[in-house]
Amino acid sequence: MNMTSEFQSVINTRYPSPILSKIWSPDNRIRTMRQLWIYLALEQQALGITTITKEAIQELIDHRDMIDYDKIQYYESRFNHDIIAHIHAYGDLCPNAKKIIHLGATSNYINDNTDSILIKDSIAIISKKTELLLRSLTQKSMEYAKIPTIAYTHLQPAQLITIGRRFAMWSEDILMDVCNLENIRIPFRGIKGTVGTEDTLLKLFKGDSTKCNLLNDRLAEIYGFKTRIAVCGQTYSRKYDVEIIHVLSTLCQSIYKIMNDLRLLSGKMEVYEYFGKEQVGSSAMPYKKNPITCEKVCSLCRYVMNQEQNMSQTYINQWLERTLDDSSIKRIIYPECFLLTEYILDTSILVITHLLFNMEHIELQVKNHMVNVISEEIILKGVEMGYCRLDIHEKLRTILTLTNHSSYEHLLSDSTIAEIITRHHISFDPIDYIGRSIQQCEMVQKHVE
Amino acid sequence: MNMTSEFQSVINTRYPSPILSKIWSPDNRIRTMRQLWIYLALEQQALGITTITKEAIQELIDHRDMIDYDKIQYYESRFNHDIIAHIHAYGDLCPNAKKIIHLGATSNYINDNTDSILIKDSIAIISKKTELLLRSLTQKSMEYAKIPTIAYTHLQPAQLITIGRRFAMWSEDILMDVCNLENIRIPFRGIKGTVGTEDTLLKLFKGDSTKCNLLNDRLAEIYGFKTRIAVCGQTYSRKYDVEIIHVLSTLCQSIYKIMNDLRLLSGKMEVYEYFGKEQVGSSAMPYKKNPITCEKVCSLCRYVMNQEQNMSQTYINQWLERTLDDSSIKRIIYPECFLLTEYILDTSILVITHLLFNMEHIELQVKNHMVNVISEEIILKGVEMGYCRLDIHEKLRTILTLTNHSSYEHLLSDSTIAEIITRHHISFDPIDYIGRSIQQCEMVQKHVE
Amino acid sequence: MNMTSEFQSVINTRYPSPILSKIWSPDNRIRTMRQLWIYLALEQQALGITTITKEAIQELIDHRDMIDYDKIQYYESRFNHDIIAHIHAYGDLCPNAKKIIHLGATSNYINDNTDSILIKDSIAIISKKTELLLRSLTQKSMEYAKIPTIAYTHLQPAQLITIGRRFAMWSEDILMDVCNLENIRIPFRGIKGTVGTEDTLLKLFKGDSTKCNLLNDRLAEIYGFKTRIAVCGQTYSRKYDVEIIHVLSTLCQSIYKIMNDLRLLSGKMEVYEYFGKEQVGSSAMPYKKNPITCEKVCSLCRYVMNQEQNMSQTYINQWLERTLDDSSIKRIIYPECFLLTEYILDTSILVITHLLFNMEHIELQVKNHMVNVISEEIILKGVEMGYCRLDIHEKLRTILTLTNHSSYEHLLSDSTIAEIITRHHISFDPIDYIGRSIQQCEMVQKHVE
Amino acid sequence: MNMTSEFQSVINTRYPSPILSKIWSPDNRIRTMRQLWIYLALEQQALGITTITKEAIQELIDHRDMIDYDKIQYYESRFNHDIIAHIHAYGDLCPNAKKIIHLGATSNYINDNTDSILIKDSIAIISKKTELLLRSLTQKSMEYAKIPTIAYTHLQPAQLITIGRRFAMWSEDILMDVCNLENIRIPFRGIKGTVGTEDTLLKLFKGDSTKCNLLNDRLAEIYGFKTRIAVCGQTYSRKYDVEIIHVLSTLCQSIYKIMNDLRLLSGKMEVYEYFGKEQVGSSAMPYKKNPITCEKVCSLCRYVMNQEQNMSQTYINQWLERTLDDSSIKRIIYPECFLLTEYILDTSILVITHLLFNMEHIELQVKNHMVNVISEEIILKGVEMGYCRLDIHEKLRTILTLTNHSSYEHLLSDSTIAEIITRHHISFDPIDYIGRSIQQCEMVQKHVE
Repeated sequence: MNMTSEFQSVINTRYPSPILSKIWSPDNRIRTMRQLWIYLALEQQALGITTITKEAIQELIDHRDMIDYDKIQYYESRFNHDIIAHIHAYGDLCPNAKKIIHLGATSNYINDNTDSILIKDSIAIISKKTELLLRSLTQKSMEYAKIPTIAYTHLQPAQLITIGRRFAMWSEDILMDVCNLENIRIPFRGIKGTVGTEDTLLKLFKGDSTKCNLLNDRLAEIYGFKTRIAVCGQTYSRKYDVEIIHVLSTLCQSIYKIMNDLRLLSGKMEVYEYFGKEQVGSSAMPYKKNPITCEKVCSLCRYVMNQEQNMSQTYINQWLERTLDDSSIKRIIYPECFLLTEYILDTSILVITHLLFNMEHIELQVKNHMVNVISEEIILKGVEMGYCRLDIHEKLRTILTLTNHSSYEHLLSDSTIAEIITRHHISFDPIDYIGRSIQQCEMVQKHVE
Repeated sequence: MNMTSEFQSVINTRYPSPILSKIWSPDNRIRTMRQLWIYLALEQQALGITTITKEAIQELIDHRDMIDYDKIQYYESRFNHDIIAHIHAYGDLCPNAKKIIHLGATSNYINDNTDSILIKDSIAIISKKTELLLRSLTQKSMEYAKIPTIAYTHLQPAQLITIGRRFAMWSEDILMDVCNLENIRIPFRGIKGTVGTEDTLLKLFKGDSTKCNLLNDRLAEIYGFKTRIAVCGQTYSRKYDVEIIHVLSTLCQSIYKIMNDLRLLSGKMEVYEYFGKEQVGSSAMPYKKNPITCEKVCSLCRYVMNQEQNMSQTYINQWLERTLDDSSIKRIIYPECFLLTEYILDTSILVITHLLFNMEHIELQVKNHMVNVISEEIILKGVEMGYCRLDIHEKLRTILTLTNHSSYEHLLSDSTIAEIITRHHISFDPIDYIGRSIQQCEMVQKHVE
Repeated sequence: MNMTSEFQSVINTRYPSPILSKIWSPDNRIRTMRQLWIYLALEQQALGITTITKEAIQELIDHRDMIDYDKIQYYESRFNHDIIAHIHAYGDLCPNAKKIIHLGATSNYINDNTDSILIKDSIAIISKKTELLLRSLTQKSMEYAKIPTIAYTHLQPAQLITIGRRFAMWSEDILMDVCNLENIRIPFRGIKGTVGTEDTLLKLFKGDSTKCNLLNDRLAEIYGFKTRIAVCGQTYSRKYDVEIIHVLSTLCQSIYKIMNDLRLLSGKMEVYEYFGKEQVGSSAMPYKKNPITCEKVCSLCRYVMNQEQNMSQTYINQWLERTLDDSSIKRIIYPECFLLTEYILDTSILVITHLLFNMEHIELQVKNHMVNVISEEIILKGVEMGYCRLDIHEKLRTILTLTNHSSYEHLLSDSTIAEIITRHHISFDPIDYIGRSIQQCEMVQKHVE
Repeated sequence: MNMTSEFQSVINTRYPSPILSKIWSPDNRIRTMRQLWIYLALEQQALGITTITKEAIQELIDHRDMIDYDKIQYYESRFNHDIIAHIHAYGDLCPNAKKIIHLGATSNYINDNTDSILIKDSIAIISKKTELLLRSLTQKSMEYAKIPTIAYTHLQPAQLITIGRRFAMWSEDILMDVCNLENIRIPFRGIKGTVGTEDTLLKLFKGDSTKCNLLNDRLAEIYGFKTRIAVCGQTYSRKYDVEIIHVLSTLCQSIYKIMNDLRLLSGKMEVYEYFGKEQVGSSAMPYKKNPITCEKVCSLCRYVMNQEQNMSQTYINQWLERTLDDSSIKRIIYPECFLLTEYILDTSILVITHLLFNMEHIELQVKNHMVNVISEEIILKGVEMGYCRLDIHEKLRTILTLTNHSSYEHLLSDSTIAEIITRHHISFDPIDYIGRSIQQCEMVQKHVE
């Protein structure tokens, strides 16, 4: 075989997504399509359409999994219409059912609902894995809740937090994503006719509106959809697609933020991602231990994020009751975004779980920074003693920004500051400057449970 | 004065937003900032901080609205720090309070909370106006619920809907936006300290955690915020900003879709936007009546939509506890997106309310298209008579795609089709082909109420 | 085999790109990498590096095409570094050369230069096919140079052009793309060392700068690169990637514009894309002939366009001498954009070549519109007769916008207008209102040659 | 006056652009429009249009600068067409010329050409300032050409470069921008009629094609345009706008990359941006010296970058001969992008010129890193001695990644490595490891000249 002489998508070869790859496989898509035809026939029959026989339905059920890709391909190139090709291929297997397959249906009974089912199944997996990521973060948060470390604003040392508290902060963002995934509206179009008016259906049921509703209710129930489309054109509104991809995008944004922060902390030598025993950091610089997994995750997150506007531009450019400029792009975007997100989640969980902290280095840095950290306490005590907040701030500013490395001696050189420090026995112990970091870690832990 | 010799933002000069322009004015921002200092002092005092006197607070209250822009400007250029400049300017007005303004606070007690308050007030206006837009759509939907018109898929004539039904379809999208606006999470950071640990606050309250919570509870209550930040860095997570701008973006997407559809329908001569008596359509082609308002709205919607990624890129590139690459871009994006959205809403409501339909033309088009419209009914009846669905479809396809204008005679040329039509007295009345359009209009009307 | 149980990229299955799929195949990539090692060794030897023997080089040449994917895979999972894995796999085949493979090189001698070579080969193909598209447009332009048709501004009838003139207009945009493709800067990094200083190379050549230059000159010459990198970090500047993807993006933008215009003209029944004899337009509406190929091309163009910012964001976030967040995204973007662009070009050429015009309909529309078209001529003649331009314009505006369908009688109802028309024998023949359309078609034809 | 009670654009209040603000002012726009009418009349007269008198032209010239904004406003709200409003307002000032203003012209003779003129003037300024930025970079490059510093890949210490060499690398990117600005195609539409066929013009010149060309040639010459539009619709192709904004975007991308790198180097304490004597870094942390100017520039660059797709989406959605969804967005994008880019350039030049290096710290870091830096030299010498490149690399990798801080002793613990070091007197002097850094600085300096 010579597959290697053709382009291969890295989504297959480099960034495995064990579960979603199956969901978005040709086999699963075609089985899902056929199942929609089966349920349609079953429910139509139950609602009194007598042209649909039990035998026809049984035939459809029996042949659901017999997929002849060459035949489908043949019909598609002949008719240049994929649903018609699928009907013919399925019909050839089911001579009795052939007459009634797709009765009262339109292509988007199949296309839209199949997409919705695959999306629903995918979101379930993504949700579960996002929760796993969240748990890995809060576990670290609790484990390191009490270890002081420098917080950075403007990438410059600021006041203290604890290592765990930083994980708690990250967790809060992922918690928003968990919540978004739970509340996502996955639309079920059901069977609505060519332009959404249910005209054919109504005629099929001899004008009985109730049966139209019953049929759509039953189908939605079977598949477990909560968001049922009331009014639409030929397809469900592509506004839903915007929302779904947006939720994946924002999840990847949160993960990017975390992985990017880890890269910055690696640059400060505070943390390392797991590094294999035989792993080579650079083909030329043997000493290198680079945060390549974090970098890779950032790279892939960027990709998923930037697909969002493909969907929004597709939505706004849907003309009137539908145009087909949605189809090709959805075929690319949906599987790519879902599969990459599964890979991103799997990889991020591994990164978080195996992180290594350079504890000595962190401790030393904190110690050297204490002379700055105590400023806020000095200001507070100064105000208590009746000094003006602005004046104390200015005194400290002048002292502490004079050189690049300030010392305790510098502080004492100002008599007011010296007085405050002495009078109030200002502490130099980092643990006295972490505020409510530990409580905050516990609070997040509680949110997650 | 020579203002016209400098660039003027079109957001001021061309696209008026009567309410939001006031909310995002310098006056309102500074008053909001000062009010935050006042409430902080009041609540701190209530929680036992005795250095804050009643006199100081009264002084702050009395001078809240006295804004000396030149002085603020002077301090800002001197200190190169805007909050410090505002404290000095306010402090100069309140010599007694000067000592305690900003006590226990950080710049983002002021910056972030001010933004949140302006955002909350803006979202309230946008919500209200979006509901107005929705009502104008559903009103048209009910008014034209029963008038058949051609639905277009691929911009080609498809089956029938009613004019009202198309408004119902558009309404469903705006309904999603109304719902998004209601559920939006507007974060209140409260007072959390430099890096989010509440360290200073805790020290101010001599280690009493309960008071930290009480203070934040009170402030959130005063301003009516539902989403309170539990854990954060120097600012609330910029993930919230992504969400807020996303909601504006998706609203503008829906409006774009509607206005774009109206432009297409104008191209089909079915509808015209309101045209003034003296209005000139073209400086060279005097006969022109162009849908320029719809075009303008689309143009502005595009702008708002594309700001979304400014926010997502800002969020993901916030390093660790915060970097300042959020500040300038938020200063541009927030007012621009809000003000333009108000203008877009105001203008869209006018467009919808004053639409003119070319009823004769619509009726004629429907009539000419009936020969095609009846195909679905023929297929259904054919299947009832025992014919294969695929066969009838193919017969019709062959006949109806042969020429560019098919006629009734073409249909009757096939004996099977002729048999079906005759046997079942297939109707040619458009009203028999609008399916559940009227019920769907009513359903949407109900959703909205 | 059960490949169908896994996700398959539509770029392989649906949107074939016959030539570029080979260029971006694993086989071609690995052969290209190995060829770079071979040329490096050859040229180093030629410049006096005696540790590199003829035998070693011959061994490398002899085994270039023997690719054992399993072994590469094994080494990659062991070392977690792909270049190191490739060196080992190649080295295993060449025991004598193993010692010196990659001598003085870094990973980006291989990675960057391989990418550049694949890009260069791809751009050559894309250029050629873009020229073919241009030719198909200008051919139509000349064929229909003289047939009057309505021009549309605001999607409303405006003055006349000719059918061919519209093709000429489209051609001008594609001509810009042809020019962009020609002038594109494809960077050749050559061999520059880990951080771009050529330190290792300089040491290898015992401090002889001239030899560094000679080596890089020779390599660039062998591969035919015009843009040689002078100064860089670990990689060539990712600014070049922004430029390359931008050129593909803008090409797809031009094609989108054309295909979108064809969809609009189909909606006006003026033109049809080719429709197969057995082709089915809709599974429910047998009469449908939809411009699905144009829609598909628009959909895919949108995708390529929106990848552009993946590159710009990757460039600006490259930290200092390089970070690895470029790698994964480039692996996805480059082949996807190139392969889809080849498919887009192939498909567009087919669409253009097989377009069908509805000549009768076009002619009728033009005829009905003549009453409006003559306005400009009336204005001109009026001014000649001493009337004010603004006054004549206003008279015509009042008459022609009064009803939806204006007639000649309407015009004559105004005595001034009637006077102008009569006095100057204003023509009603469309051919008198196409201006320099024919000359313009000829001009574009000339540009292309 | 109560301007502060309305929204004020920060582009006026915070981010001054001294030159471009004037170019994009209402005064300059209107003067430019009127000048176009003047030149048109002059050249038409020169080509024999006798209805245009010298007196009329003189009247136009005399009143060019008398702008009555209220009157324009009045006409605009009356006719809802801005060019018609301007003609009336100008015409009121010039009773004799009123008859012939705009003769043979269309709105886009005024709109498009005015935009093109403002764009051309703006690009000239941006070019000049980009060259100034480049010079400030190369000056630093030469000044620090010889000072070794650590290069960072993956934000981890890599081999050495010199401080100047990093400036040289940045310069190369800006050099590409300088080149892009020089080659930018700014289109001159000239006078082409309503739909681009020059029909009116041709009639005006009684069918004399040569005069059409002469008129357009003269106008292009007067304004100094090199890119003349041959064939277009109602406007020049919006593809040009995509290109122009792209060039601004890529310039801002390069500047973002540089400023972002400076922020990272500040985080490594290697460099500081200029900090005012009284400047306050934080209202709560008096010790802070943050790179706020670099952060601000990054923020604004992000904004400009992200406007690019506003233009590309506008271009591709221009329907047929033109739709008006280009107008509003261009009114916002063009001035905003140009004015912000001027501010970004001015600010970046200041940042670069006033940078402060922490030389001691840089030197110390380099010294501590030398044990790693010498690895490449050890590999090279090892290969010379007959060792396998891969083996030496592996030995070094094992030693140097064992602990977080490797020492010379670690290296000597391996006998092979020890042998290589001793035998070849491997140098520990940083200057021996900067490769061709100095030459590269000189090369870039030369490119710039």
